[in-house]
Amino acid sequence: MSNIFFNTQHAPIGAHASLTLGFPGARGGMDLELCRAPNQSVLVAVESRTQPNLFEALPFSDLPDPAERRKFVNEELMTHVGETRPFDRAAVSRDFHLTTDTWRAGDLRYTLYTPVRDLPDLDRDLPTRDADARRALVPAVRGEITVDNRRGEFTRRVVVGLSRIDPVRGLRHVRQDGLVGIGDGLDLGLFTDAEGAWSCIGFDPLSVLNDPHPSNRHAMLGNWGSLVFEVPAGALRTFRVAYCFHRPGVVTSGLAARYFYTRWFDSVESVAAFALSEFDEAVDACRAADAALDARGLSPEQHFTVAHTTRSYLYSTQMLAHDGRALWVVNEGEFNMMNTLDLAADHALYEVQHHPWTVRNVLEQYAERFAYVDRLHFAATGLVCDGGVTFPHDMGINGHFALPGRSAYEMAGLTGCFSYMATEELLNWILCAGLYVQHANDLAWATSYATLLEQCLQSLEQRDHPDDTQRIGVPRADSSRCEGGREITTYDCLDPSLGQASGNTYIAGKAWAAGVILRHVFERIGLPGPARRAHLQARRAAATVRASARSDGRIPALLDGGGDAVILPVIEGLAYPWFAGCRDALDLDGEYGPYLRTLKRHLEEHVLREDTCLYPDGGWRITSSNSNTFPAKVYVCQFVAREILRSPLGAVGDRADAAHMAWQLHPEHSAGCWTEQVDNGIAHTAKYYPRGVSSNIWLTEKAPRRRPGSPALSSAPSVEVSGEGGR
Amino acid sequence: MSNIFFNTQHAPIGAHASLTLGFPGARGGMDLELCRAPNQSVLVAVESRTQPNLFEALPFSDLPDPAERRKFVNEELMTHVGETRPFDRAAVSRDFHLTTDTWRAGDLRYTLYTPVRDLPDLDRDLPTRDADARRALVPAVRGEITVDNRRGEFTRRVVVGLSRIDPVRGLRHVRQDGLVGIGDGLDLGLFTDAEGAWSCIGFDPLSVLNDPHPSNRHAMLGNWGSLVFEVPAGALRTFRVAYCFHRPGVVTSGLAARYFYTRWFDSVESVAAFALSEFDEAVDACRAADAALDARGLSPEQHFTVAHTTRSYLYSTQMLAHDGRALWVVNEGEFNMMNTLDLAADHALYEVQHHPWTVRNVLEQYAERFAYVDRLHFAATGLVCDGGVTFPHDMGINGHFALPGRSAYEMAGLTGCFSYMATEELLNWILCAGLYVQHANDLAWATSYATLLEQCLQSLEQRDHPDDTQRIGVPRADSSRCEGGREITTYDCLDPSLGQASGNTYIAGKAWAAGVILRHVFERIGLPGPARRAHLQARRAAATVRASARSDGRIPALLDGGGDAVILPVIEGLAYPWFAGCRDALDLDGEYGPYLRTLKRHLEEHVLREDTCLYPDGGWRITSSNSNTFPAKVYVCQFVAREILRSPLGAVGDRADAAHMAWQLHPEHSAGCWTEQVDNGIAHTAKYYPRGVSSNIWLTEKAPRRRPGSPALSSAPSVEVSGEGGR
Repeated sequence: MSNIFFNTQHAPIGAHASLTLGFPGARGGMDLELCRAPNQSVLVAVESRTQPNLFEALPFSDLPDPAERRKFVNEELMTHVGETRPFDRAAVSRDFHLTTDTWRAGDLRYTLYTPVRDLPDLDRDLPTRDADARRALVPAVRGEITVDNRRGEFTRRVVVGLSRIDPVRGLRHVRQDGLVGIGDGLDLGLFTDAEGAWSCIGFDPLSVLNDPHPSNRHAMLGNWGSLVFEVPAGALRTFRVAYCFHRPGVVTSGLAARYFYTRWFDSVESVAAFALSEFDEAVDACRAADAALDARGLSPEQHFTVAHTTRSYLYSTQMLAHDGRALWVVNEGEFNMMNTLDLAADHALYEVQHHPWTVRNVLEQYAERFAYVDRLHFAATGLVCDGGVTFPHDMGINGHFALPGRSAYEMAGLTGCFSYMATEELLNWILCAGLYVQHANDLAWATSYATLLEQCLQSLEQRDHPDDTQRIGVPRADSSRCEGGREITTYDCLDPSLGQASGNTYIAGKAWAAGVILRHVFERIGLPGPARRAHLQARRAAATVRASARSDGRIPALLDGGGDAVILPVIEGLAYPWFAGCRDALDLDGEYGPYLRTLKRHLEEHVLREDTCLYPDGGWRITSSNSNTFPAKVYVCQFVAREILRSPLGAVGDRADAAHMAWQLHPEHSAGCWTEQVDNGIAHTAKYYPRGVSSNIWLTEKAPRRRPGSPALSSAPSVEVSGEGGR
Repeated sequence: MSNIFFNTQHAPIGAHASLTLGFPGARGGMDLELCRAPNQSVLVAVESRTQPNLFEALPFSDLPDPAERRKFVNEELMTHVGETRPFDRAAVSRDFHLTTDTWRAGDLRYTLYTPVRDLPDLDRDLPTRDADARRALVPAVRGEITVDNRRGEFTRRVVVGLSRIDPVRGLRHVRQDGLVGIGDGLDLGLFTDAEGAWSCIGFDPLSVLNDPHPSNRHAMLGNWGSLVFEVPAGALRTFRVAYCFHRPGVVTSGLAARYFYTRWFDSVESVAAFALSEFDEAVDACRAADAALDARGLSPEQHFTVAHTTRSYLYSTQMLAHDGRALWVVNEGEFNMMNTLDLAADHALYEVQHHPWTVRNVLEQYAERFAYVDRLHFAATGLVCDGGVTFPHDMGINGHFALPGRSAYEMAGLTGCFSYMATEELLNWILCAGLYVQHANDLAWATSYATLLEQCLQSLEQRDHPDDTQRIGVPRADSSRCEGGREITTYDCLDPSLGQASGNTYIAGKAWAAGVILRHVFERIGLPGPARRAHLQARRAAATVRASARSDGRIPALLDGGGDAVILPVIEGLAYPWFAGCRDALDLDGEYGPYLRTLKRHLEEHVLREDTCLYPDGGWRITSSNSNTFPAKVYVCQFVAREILRSPLGAVGDRADAAHMAWQLHPEHSAGCWTEQVDNGIAHTAKYYPRGVSSNIWLTEKAPRRRPGSPALSSAPSVEVSGEGGR
């Protein structure tokens, strides 16, 4: 690993919360709905084996300068204060996995556990799976600190703490029912049930540590709170802590919802009690999840990407409840829009593997509250006609649900960023429906939504052309909501090669996929008429894209377009039929063979070239005409290239994985966890983003990627806690 | 007024909330429990009379740079944006009062209303006074914007808005039941019920203003939220808004309490609906309160001080409920400790005028949860003995209640800041009890607390000396809680002249007052034995202080002390018997005449001198040995000097008032609202402090202070909105 000091989220599912850690200094911390690392000091320090009262800390705190701190408070208070200093970074190692993240330095080992597991269907199975649901949703991050003092000659103290980040309430002691903790405000806290541990609050992380007056452990002033443990000489001890989150009450507007976990937990203390009591189970779950991922045989670079992106996705998830009904929300990283539908289609690729019901939940939310019907304008001809049903870009932002039928993002009168995505989102709803029906095998749901599915097909047809004889399978209209503007796509901030929805071959690829999938679904629920129409649209789309290819095999970005941009995502849509039970349609020698071979040629001969879509480091661009790329979408296209189009990537593929990993490990640009917008290797925007979880489709690939002798995910130098017996 | 651009709180009582405004730039804003101005832009702008699309704003925003803002978002969005610029500061005037604060510039007038009224006894009178209580406690600040467009030739728009400060949820639209608003998160918002008003959210305060697509008024992206109003040509219009606060659920730890107002209001929207519906009543209440203060005949400087300090006090107040019972908390400004007992004694001087029951409420909280019994150590002799009942420094911090019997602040083993204040707080509890019993005439309460009152007397006696024959009326012991440290006083950060409690003549003055008051209370409830003992302690204290005076009349700061510090607060304690019904004891020719005359001589001959306690600007120091002073305590001493000791201050008094006012109006050091620690004219620490409300005792003075021809509180140039009919 080129740099082990990168931030990643340690996030329970559904809590919009993370203990973010890894970047040096106070650049991580407990993030509850902030969508940014709170710049909190996360202190993990152990007394030196040779020098009493000198504490060596993992490099995740801004430690007070001993000279500086004397200025602020009564000097008497500082008499007993010890010294803290960070471990030499070269002496720190990291062992990073999907659900465990371990730091070692000197005699110290610090592991954070965040299980990744299936989430029971809260709409249907809660009565029988309440215990599983509680286990999955407990909003806590468990940590384990092991100190090996077997060679030590005196009792060494261990200090695990936090600097205050709550802007209003600050730190507090919690001492109840065998629990010792430091609360930061009312909603956050760090807890232990270790015997003999005690809590302290002060102006310095060590201020009360040596104080000869035990009564001063009651003191409440200051912005450092810590738990203190002791390891006798000759002993090796492990202490367990839980970083806990608990936001009570209504947390949204527009549609009043609460966190689902509040049905089991009424306070951060109750979260802590449960998290600590079920510690072993969580560790076992983590070991099992990490082992399962190891067994998939990914290359180390792919392994890293799956782990890092999945963590970022989990952070953005929110399991809410409204009127007793579960409400699944995936927030959009630092942009924090809710269930953004053009991301939902990427997330669905992961979600159907672990909790397909959340895809259904989002589909239903869109269907019930947000669907709208528009009219259309065809810019090329000036034609105006009825449109059809479609969906807005998102459900709101920052926990504020938008009005029914409206998004936070879309505005009329624009041709670029913030314009409407009526076509893009219609396609995404269809693709998600197809994934859900296939993975849940839920034909009853498909039947109950048959009307809407057929309306979607009709809307898609209209956006192609109102006159059936003039249809080409590719949407070319702009929604009346644009009011004279032009629809855009999820690639909103790139350029017209992908920004414009109408006649875009990326959109054409998704329209083809929607046709294939709708045909399959309609056939399964016994609606041959719509199935035929869907089939026809798919065939038209395939033919249109194929016909659009230039003589050299390049598929233009826009059907009507000039310009010579080469775009990667023309192949992106292929992933959806693959996972929606339509692999027949992806047979290179089958019905769509000519179409697929056209895409394959475009990819191999025009996209994967250093003068078009390959950066010098081997990473992949989305479009040749912009230096900004969207890695989550690249991950999908990599899968399509390898697994569906069977392009022989070889070293090109490995270089890409290595480059994509290196971008997220940049020593200066990796404080924002996994990031979706990368410009020439600089991860600059769309931080804390969930979409990279699309990389999980790699786990389904048949051919293992592991290269012989490839390095582990651990960093060197790795300082093992040697000779440890048991945990 | 030397500088009109100073921050002051506009604060409803009991909500720990304020719309803080006055300092230039984004240095004010909606402060809910932050204990600091949130650095929010508060936009009040009107379209120019001559130049359409140019908006002139009061200088309380950091307006986006038109060039800069184009960088951030789609340029298309900026096509329609108008220009904002601040009014020339010289063209802005302010009319500052206790409950109204009015800004004028050009054709604009902007007034904020925050009534100051009595608060019904929520422990006893709620059933009959529910409506009054709701009116008093509604957590809203009302504002009125008047624009005179009678000379205008086109419809001018008015934009009243805010920049986002909620760190998590950001801005939202509220449109319901005739209410239009911008919510900032779930707990804050700006609302109107004006017909035709609409809300907008954008990356620029004016971004949606000229947008030709009304549908874009739904947009939710961006950090500026505004309400938009229109004033037709030829019209003068007034619009009403309410800045509202609403924090639901449990807001404390240790003792779980909610805001009392949540019994009437379940959301910030319901606060807004009520505040707007009762707008006229609030305006009338403000006019009455301002008129009542005007009628007191204070000098402009005193008038300013009373208004400014009262606002700061109201901000710090919190009316909570725990298990259905009212819980009154006054937080300690930026330090945010709860019901700090050495401040409670100052606040009580105001509270008994408006809501004496809150003094009782705090006394009972201390008695029931926080009282403790200690042992004593006499440093001078080494004697150790039983102590008695006393009280901690505070009840906790930042909403976290301390453990029973403990404070957030006090620590063992210290001799300076953060040490115990057992003696100081025992005295303060007694003095507050005396004030309460007198003002509420509540002998039943005194009777029910007779045991504790007697225990307090006994504790006071013990702290003097366990052997009655060796008592001198002055506490000289340190509590066993100090564990070898020394007790301090409320003047913790000054120097030993006031920092040390034992044998301090400031403490002696409060001990004398406690003796006088306890005697009075015990007599009224028919306990002659304790009354005699209290009387004896008062006589002893008076004699001791008198005897301590040097031949030149100077009273030393410490009875046993070397050094030559001259301290002002040796006279401070006199205020308490005055307001506790013991004016006989303050007769310069009465029983304590010699004591009082000793104090008077000390004040006149040693304190009020430029080489001791007068700064060059005429302001008063607390002690000659420190350049730092505590104005709230000076205010009490000014009252004592004028009204009780009848010292002929003349120009010295006026200069002091002018200096004390000027400190709080410093053009650079007045962002922190009223501030209690001032070093050589620089208000540096203890910002947003409540204690200055002690100045309200000036309203009880018999001799009016107004000098003939003194200037009004308004600033020049004052641009009146002329010819306005009606409000």
